[in-house]
Amino acid sequence: MLELQHTIASTPFTINGRDYHPPARPIVAICVDGCADEYLNTAIAHGRMPNVVKMSVQGYRGVVRGALPSFTNVNNCAIVTGLPPRQTGIGGNYIIDPQSGDEVMTNSSRFLKPDTILAAAERTGRKVAMVTAKDKLRELLAKGLETGISFSAEKANQVTAEVNHIADVESLAGPTPAIYSGEASVYVLRAGVALIEQGLADFLYLSTTDYMQHRYAPDAPEAIDFYAALDEQIGRLLALDAVVALTADHGMNAKCDTDGQPNVVYLETALNEQFGGGCRVICPITDPYVAHHGALGSAVTVYLPTNLDVNDVAAWIRDLPGVTEVHDKASAMSQLELPGDHVGDLFVLAARHAVIGRTPEHHDLSQLHGSLRSHGGRYEELVPLIVSEPLSDTYRAVAAGDPRNFDLFAFACNAARTAQAES
Amino acid sequence: MLELQHTIASTPFTINGRDYHPPARPIVAICVDGCADEYLNTAIAHGRMPNVVKMSVQGYRGVVRGALPSFTNVNNCAIVTGLPPRQTGIGGNYIIDPQSGDEVMTNSSRFLKPDTILAAAERTGRKVAMVTAKDKLRELLAKGLETGISFSAEKANQVTAEVNHIADVESLAGPTPAIYSGEASVYVLRAGVALIEQGLADFLYLSTTDYMQHRYAPDAPEAIDFYAALDEQIGRLLALDAVVALTADHGMNAKCDTDGQPNVVYLETALNEQFGGGCRVICPITDPYVAHHGALGSAVTVYLPTNLDVNDVAAWIRDLPGVTEVHDKASAMSQLELPGDHVGDLFVLAARHAVIGRTPEHHDLSQLHGSLRSHGGRYEELVPLIVSEPLSDTYRAVAAGDPRNFDLFAFACNAARTAQAES
Repeated sequence: MLELQHTIASTPFTINGRDYHPPARPIVAICVDGCADEYLNTAIAHGRMPNVVKMSVQGYRGVVRGALPSFTNVNNCAIVTGLPPRQTGIGGNYIIDPQSGDEVMTNSSRFLKPDTILAAAERTGRKVAMVTAKDKLRELLAKGLETGISFSAEKANQVTAEVNHIADVESLAGPTPAIYSGEASVYVLRAGVALIEQGLADFLYLSTTDYMQHRYAPDAPEAIDFYAALDEQIGRLLALDAVVALTADHGMNAKCDTDGQPNVVYLETALNEQFGGGCRVICPITDPYVAHHGALGSAVTVYLPTNLDVNDVAAWIRDLPGVTEVHDKASAMSQLELPGDHVGDLFVLAARHAVIGRTPEHHDLSQLHGSLRSHGGRYEELVPLIVSEPLSDTYRAVAAGDPRNFDLFAFACNAARTAQAES
Repeated sequence: MLELQHTIASTPFTINGRDYHPPARPIVAICVDGCADEYLNTAIAHGRMPNVVKMSVQGYRGVVRGALPSFTNVNNCAIVTGLPPRQTGIGGNYIIDPQSGDEVMTNSSRFLKPDTILAAAERTGRKVAMVTAKDKLRELLAKGLETGISFSAEKANQVTAEVNHIADVESLAGPTPAIYSGEASVYVLRAGVALIEQGLADFLYLSTTDYMQHRYAPDAPEAIDFYAALDEQIGRLLALDAVVALTADHGMNAKCDTDGQPNVVYLETALNEQFGGGCRVICPITDPYVAHHGALGSAVTVYLPTNLDVNDVAAWIRDLPGVTEVHDKASAMSQLELPGDHVGDLFVLAARHAVIGRTPEHHDLSQLHGSLRSHGGRYEELVPLIVSEPLSDTYRAVAAGDPRNFDLFAFACNAARTAQAES
């Protein structure tokens, strides 16, 4: 462990307007996809997350505000850059490309505007590694990595030195897991541990997938076992003297009535019935992996034909059951921090128990296994932040204000610095 | 303990459209004022709430949605009736009285429209007791109690048999505490324990005050000690074989910038500057005890002069920094479940770190001790629910949907019933 420390570069760097002072220890920033605070609470009550409890007591545990809409790409891009969506350029997993007018996935680093903290750390000599569960997210976030390792659990058996800067992952972290599994996420953390143990990385971003949270409520035994498995890997990271900071991209809520039927507002259908056609609803949760949520989330953007009055339509949507907020483009940019070119004429958020769909034909509910848990709105915006180190006075003040999940690397690199080091 | 059980009436009853089947055990519904989930998490991580952990594992812990605006009177009235504000008639602590046009506190049971669950339980022979921290809340909630005990920690030394249906509280629960103290809340629970021990009550509502939460963040040692003291009393209730169900009226967030300055939108001032006078802002958090929040919360209602267009003003407010939602009266009634006669032309909610004030002159910030923690908006709407008993399948489904804090008595009375008993 001490040998390892001596080999770690600890040069401060500045990126996207923020200073980072990583200590000469492994830095591990973790995004547990879909980790509503309740998952931690339940697993902790059952005594299954001793390492997270230890972090909470010796360091910090609190709640931070993510980026809206509370989706995966939006928040992962914010976290790896330290910037809100308006500056990352990523306001959804799925958008109308402002250049082509086509509906496209944002799973390409060409959509990510700023440089990443990972690429900046690499330039100071840190051994950077990023491990994601899904390969599409890896592609998006690997922007600018020249030598840093990046791979996904999903395609661990397909890595190449050219693309991933590592030639063999399975001998390090085990056989490639199925993407629709809890193991796909545990694998991400296990790979992180192995990378540090092997001296291959000392500045890591580990980002899991929310298959388990979409499928299981916090008190399901499967969820508790899953969190226990994550905690075990966190314990191994702490044993390697890593600074560990953990947050989530978004929370998760049940979106069903008590009879188990999904509680869906099919907004494109409703608008075209009410206003006579030409309205188009884009569901930014859409990604290549829809089996667990049917592309149904709690935020959508709406494109209107030019003959309709935006304010009239907004007022009408605002009164629909299950809707909580309707923003026009200006308000979506100023109040929701969204990039204007990813937003239509209106941006709509849904209630805790509701999702917004496009038309019934656009969503396959047959794979939902009789329940729907999802995210996207304000009710999934608040997420945990857990830091292994005691916070400095400066960061105590940050944590006591309105901290964000995309402050994750700042907490990981800077939060434990003493007041003396800061001055 | 067994002797006590034999004396408890267990007659089902129906009130406000719901059936209650309290078992022949002491039923204790607790509202911990201002109990954001983070307070529990921190105290639990420090090992200071073993009884709440035990409840979580043997029974249920989850998150429920309160009533908006997330204020004390609104939510306490909802909890004791099992109804949303639109049906209780209480949409704030402070309103413009629709009869007189005067600004008044809602601390009088004349404003509470429906009958209470407590009064209904009393009529079935239950020995009802309600203990609140503040006396004004007791006055409001004691509606219809003919024999049931009701008193406050604040005025424990002033009880009379005529008003409170108990002649001496101090010999039961100790000396009357200061209202601006943690003891004012611990006293409420200690009194509940004593009432059960003495055979004076078997159906209880215990409602604390949020002085500590306004003053201290979850990781302050004072907050942790306070929650440990609450947990000790909860342990005593469980030892008396009580069914214990606990929720909160609202959460709590810091409403300051990182320099400790309150983050206030003075909306009446801003509106009158923009629109030329005549706008009136009512802060429904206002109550007789303002030292800890200066009457600054995250929800207000706005009365406009007739010459202004409501939609134009709404759109303007919607773009102010710190504002999250602006509803007109119709939307406030349909989407926020508010009583129309307590709402002006607009209803405005604020962000996690912001409060909305009237004018600078209306708010005394000098007593805030250099920080402001408050509530009222959506960010303080989600609160814990903890039930000491395992949930039946029916209530598991309720808990997995969109449960409310005003389902508290339903959880306390019905949640542990088996499927057989329900049929």
